[in-house]
Amino acid sequence: MKSRMEVYPLKSSILKPGDSLQESIADALSISRIRPHNGDIIAVASKVVAIVEGNMARLSSVRPSKRARRLAQRYKMDPEFVQVVLNESDKVYSGVNGALLTLKDGDAVANAGADQKNAPLGYAVLWPRDSDKASRRLRAQMERRYGKKLGILIVDSRVTPLRLGTIGLALGCAGFAPVRDLRGSVDLYHRRARITVHALADGLAGVAHLVMGESKEQTPFVLVRNSPAMVDGRNRSRNSMQLPSRECLYMSSIID
Amino acid sequence: MKSRMEVYPLKSSILKPGDSLQESIADALSISRIRPHNGDIIAVASKVVAIVEGNMARLSSVRPSKRARRLAQRYKMDPEFVQVVLNESDKVYSGVNGALLTLKDGDAVANAGADQKNAPLGYAVLWPRDSDKASRRLRAQMERRYGKKLGILIVDSRVTPLRLGTIGLALGCAGFAPVRDLRGSVDLYHRRARITVHALADGLAGVAHLVMGESKEQTPFVLVRNSPAMVDGRNRSRNSMQLPSRECLYMSSIID
Repeated sequence: MKSRMEVYPLKSSILKPGDSLQESIADALSISRIRPHNGDIIAVASKVVAIVEGNMARLSSVRPSKRARRLAQRYKMDPEFVQVVLNESDKVYSGVNGALLTLKDGDAVANAGADQKNAPLGYAVLWPRDSDKASRRLRAQMERRYGKKLGILIVDSRVTPLRLGTIGLALGCAGFAPVRDLRGSVDLYHRRARITVHALADGLAGVAHLVMGESKEQTPFVLVRNSPAMVDGRNRSRNSMQLPSRECLYMSSIID
Repeated sequence: MKSRMEVYPLKSSILKPGDSLQESIADALSISRIRPHNGDIIAVASKVVAIVEGNMARLSSVRPSKRARRLAQRYKMDPEFVQVVLNESDKVYSGVNGALLTLKDGDAVANAGADQKNAPLGYAVLWPRDSDKASRRLRAQMERRYGKKLGILIVDSRVTPLRLGTIGLALGCAGFAPVRDLRGSVDLYHRRARITVHALADGLAGVAHLVMGESKEQTPFVLVRNSPAMVDGRNRSRNSMQLPSRECLYMSSIID
């Protein structure tokens, strides 16, 4: 077993469209006097990735459709924001007060990832345009800058069934395997595992989300050292963390 | 902001019914040369809590009902195991190959928490009988032993919608607030938060689960130092982490 895992929250100034993520993370590391080691994983809040990309919707320039108005009334939401969610969703399943259950890039999440919290006033921040590409690019930049093998993880907030509050969700990663497949391995009693897969990237997203906070902590970056995820220099695509809906314990009932 | 969070995985010998959790954790801490500090949180795998309680079902002594046989065939499961799940469930909603979606003590989880992995051969391990009580008792014992203010967390594995693999789920905790309610607080742009709640206990469960692993790591205990969850000496009940189904983004669709 490896020794203790260390988790460093990194503060940043407020980011704006066009800012450099690479420079912001480097500044945050330098202020905290941390130099990355081989195998470190740097988690980045999806919100700042989307903000530097400028991937935001200005609510005052949105014209809500009839459907948006109807959903907004039913779920007590702003029609303009609902229209943004409709634009961003691959599918809308249902809703609760304040949120629609949507499918977005293969994930079943609230409001297709659109969010007004910590967004510039009058805007909703969307998900990064392409989390795979963003994490690969950032990985290449950071590895070049520090001369170390690093992992990158883009993290959003999610809700889970029947639980109060949000935890982390991995939107994209680079440089390490997001899941560890234990099917075929043996347990403590030499029994073969049948369906066990360990969601490492989501676990790391949980770690990062826990210390990033959910309000105005200004901690969009987290460095994780000595995690069980081995940084192996390979990139995997976002859908390698996802499950087809017919195999999903929850969504197979909602979709059928 | 607090400094880095530290996460110590603690190895243990294999536990048996009747063993003392308190002694096992103390042994594991002593082998790792760790002395708890005020504010540390000790996470314990639900499996070992249930095993020391003897809360297991012997599969050979189970007689599957007609319903169990039918579900077993439909979802490719063992009829005896399905009967155990039926016995443990408050409700069964649906299933996928290998798992039933059930309601158990207010959580929507696979197989009502019953699990054969790392269970003594011929047995399924269930959830602890009362996770609130188990975590409170352990907290009192550990605080007395070390003379420190500690938090206790009981952790299980869970799946989440459309994601491959398992993450941590908090079954019970003692000594700290499992959720941080940010409703009414302001964000970076002084906007009032509407529905933001940070699931600290589930986040910590994610941290613990990540380093516990999912196979034969024999790491049922994890000490977390410097987490954002403040150990305040108060106990909260398990249902303070839970959401009524009508407010749940996922289960409101499944139940309606």
